[in-house]
Amino acid sequence: MQFQFADRVARAPKSFLEELFKVSSDPSIISFAGGLPSAELIDTVGIARAAREIFEEDPKVALQYTTTDGFLPLREYIADRYRHRLGIPATAEEIQIVNGSQQCLDLFAKLFLNRGDHVGMERPGYLGAIEAFSLYEPVIDTVPLEEDGPDLDAFTQMVKKERPKFFYGIPNSQNPSGRTYSQEKRKAIAEVLSGTSPVFYEDDAFGELFFDARPRLPVKKYLPEQAVISGSFSKTVAPGMRIGWMFAPSGILQQFNVVKQAADLHSNFLCQKILHRYLTTSDPDAHIKTIVSAYSRKCRLMCELFDDLMPEIIHTNPEGGMFLMATLPPGLSSREVFDEGVRKKVAVLPGLPFYVDGGGTDTIRLNFSSASEEQIHEGMHRLAQGIAALRRN
Amino acid sequence: MQFQFADRVARAPKSFLEELFKVSSDPSIISFAGGLPSAELIDTVGIARAAREIFEEDPKVALQYTTTDGFLPLREYIADRYRHRLGIPATAEEIQIVNGSQQCLDLFAKLFLNRGDHVGMERPGYLGAIEAFSLYEPVIDTVPLEEDGPDLDAFTQMVKKERPKFFYGIPNSQNPSGRTYSQEKRKAIAEVLSGTSPVFYEDDAFGELFFDARPRLPVKKYLPEQAVISGSFSKTVAPGMRIGWMFAPSGILQQFNVVKQAADLHSNFLCQKILHRYLTTSDPDAHIKTIVSAYSRKCRLMCELFDDLMPEIIHTNPEGGMFLMATLPPGLSSREVFDEGVRKKVAVLPGLPFYVDGGGTDTIRLNFSSASEEQIHEGMHRLAQGIAALRRN
Repeated sequence: MQFQFADRVARAPKSFLEELFKVSSDPSIISFAGGLPSAELIDTVGIARAAREIFEEDPKVALQYTTTDGFLPLREYIADRYRHRLGIPATAEEIQIVNGSQQCLDLFAKLFLNRGDHVGMERPGYLGAIEAFSLYEPVIDTVPLEEDGPDLDAFTQMVKKERPKFFYGIPNSQNPSGRTYSQEKRKAIAEVLSGTSPVFYEDDAFGELFFDARPRLPVKKYLPEQAVISGSFSKTVAPGMRIGWMFAPSGILQQFNVVKQAADLHSNFLCQKILHRYLTTSDPDAHIKTIVSAYSRKCRLMCELFDDLMPEIIHTNPEGGMFLMATLPPGLSSREVFDEGVRKKVAVLPGLPFYVDGGGTDTIRLNFSSASEEQIHEGMHRLAQGIAALRRN
Repeated sequence: MQFQFADRVARAPKSFLEELFKVSSDPSIISFAGGLPSAELIDTVGIARAAREIFEEDPKVALQYTTTDGFLPLREYIADRYRHRLGIPATAEEIQIVNGSQQCLDLFAKLFLNRGDHVGMERPGYLGAIEAFSLYEPVIDTVPLEEDGPDLDAFTQMVKKERPKFFYGIPNSQNPSGRTYSQEKRKAIAEVLSGTSPVFYEDDAFGELFFDARPRLPVKKYLPEQAVISGSFSKTVAPGMRIGWMFAPSGILQQFNVVKQAADLHSNFLCQKILHRYLTTSDPDAHIKTIVSAYSRKCRLMCELFDDLMPEIIHTNPEGGMFLMATLPPGLSSREVFDEGVRKKVAVLPGLPFYVDGGGTDTIRLNFSSASEEQIHEGMHRLAQGIAALRRN
């Protein structure tokens, strides 16, 4: 039968993911198209030990219902890390545990967006955010993302003209571009927003994955009461536990907690306890250093292979994170590069889903965290052959 | 600063839960007010063993991202159980894993409800559903819940007049009332809906917790393409893992999957694998029998204590589940019974949050699964003293 779905369903962007998944499940294909952290860098031994301890000590509590806000010691750990790592005052009362930071996108949009409200984003912008926000039927206004952050004039005009409920951005190693906002731009953004109503929503999935040791301060540092940060353990510990958080002023977080409760009561408590035990009884900083060192090598390798094998392709030079973006030379479309790549057994992600306006036909996103260095080497050679073949046609 | 939240936030019902939580955290209070399964009946040893095996065999996969639909063998297990337990044809393709069945409420409402759409519910109705649905700003039409299910005339009229997108009900051991639809009423409901557009949404959190062995067939049996069932392992295995599912025709489930992906990518994969291992290497039916036997004793005890100590109070006689509902004699309000109960160190839940129209002032909900038999004995005596004190005033 025909079902009468809500209007919002028609607003969901056509997902490229199913096609991608089919491609990714072919083991002969080297995939740079996904967004997985390296499975080799998950500390399975340490997490298994933490799990064993929780099951030995406190299983009845860990397996029972709990409160919506999340495991207090884990929230304290997160707040403490903001204080020590970034010098940002944060308390457990400002932290809500969620199912990975994707849930922040859904709940935050639910909390702020009426149909037709405006929301600002980078162009290109994270496709998971576009998917989550679109279901609340907003008008999405994009601001070009330059080398050092959003185009400030465009940002200022957009804020003035459209009065968005919030601006969503990824200042650290953005997905898909791999770009990082300069400190000056962060300050400037805070100045533009100060005294206006839009909230700055920083998605900080990659802030602990910078290849250098230089600290980047979030926009929230300059706009404490008007900015929120979402965080995740998916890239620093393990994605399969689905534990992330929202760090927000209490005036937002109290209402955020209400929509979280209506959404699923609370996040997986067993994994919250395992994760907290793991973080407090292992050396997460040393583990992050290992991840960063591996990703840094892989990123450099991928960039060098681009320069050596495909000098006609312009690519970003990420300072961290898991992704880089490449711009194809005139005459090549990302869709044909994807199709030709699949024939040559290498997958890249066409840039289209990162643009709400049909742009991005000449861009591709590549993930450098998941594949091994050998696979990156081989995959980039395959990609170069594919692109050479396309250019000959 | 003042934040410009979406209009839906003002529609969120005032939650009684915070007050309740304060009460429940006082260890001197015996609480019948919550909704916890018995922590004593969680098979912590069996789940710990399953977890150990997953960590030994496949930790890298269990801790990595996975697909939105959920772990295929777990979905096959769930489908298989519908086939064998209820004789309902079900396939893994019709099952989506979610974060406990509360997430079904949110995602299903998101999938179907435009602002102002109608949705049908029982009166009284489950407060978690009221909270989840309200955030999509529907008109909620309630149908009186009688001893054997919804008032059929009122149900028929409501369906004809309001054309709701769906009717949400709990045919098995309803929360809060503890009532179970008769088989005749299930058939009659299917007949009324057949050929019309509303979907029947059966929340089946308690269908495996009947005190007798008699099978009750879901409305979906008579309306296979127009009914969905949400299920949960929270009551039969453990709530802290937050694993439930939606069982729906593929025409609904494909779109449900889209909104699930936008909401949080996928449910906790580690716990999906642990749970599947546990279910397939232990004896879940024997474990459920143990739970049922304990809950049956506790329920009977609570009913008997009502009859002995408070004969002026009318209560439901549940055939299963975790809750019963009591109607206070004229002149007593649930709010004063709650307050007096707290003074006497026993907590019950006033019926108000189960009514969207301000009703329920003379009803209270009692949970019989969480407290021990000794606590039930003591708590019911305290409640009787409290009510006697109120009636003397």
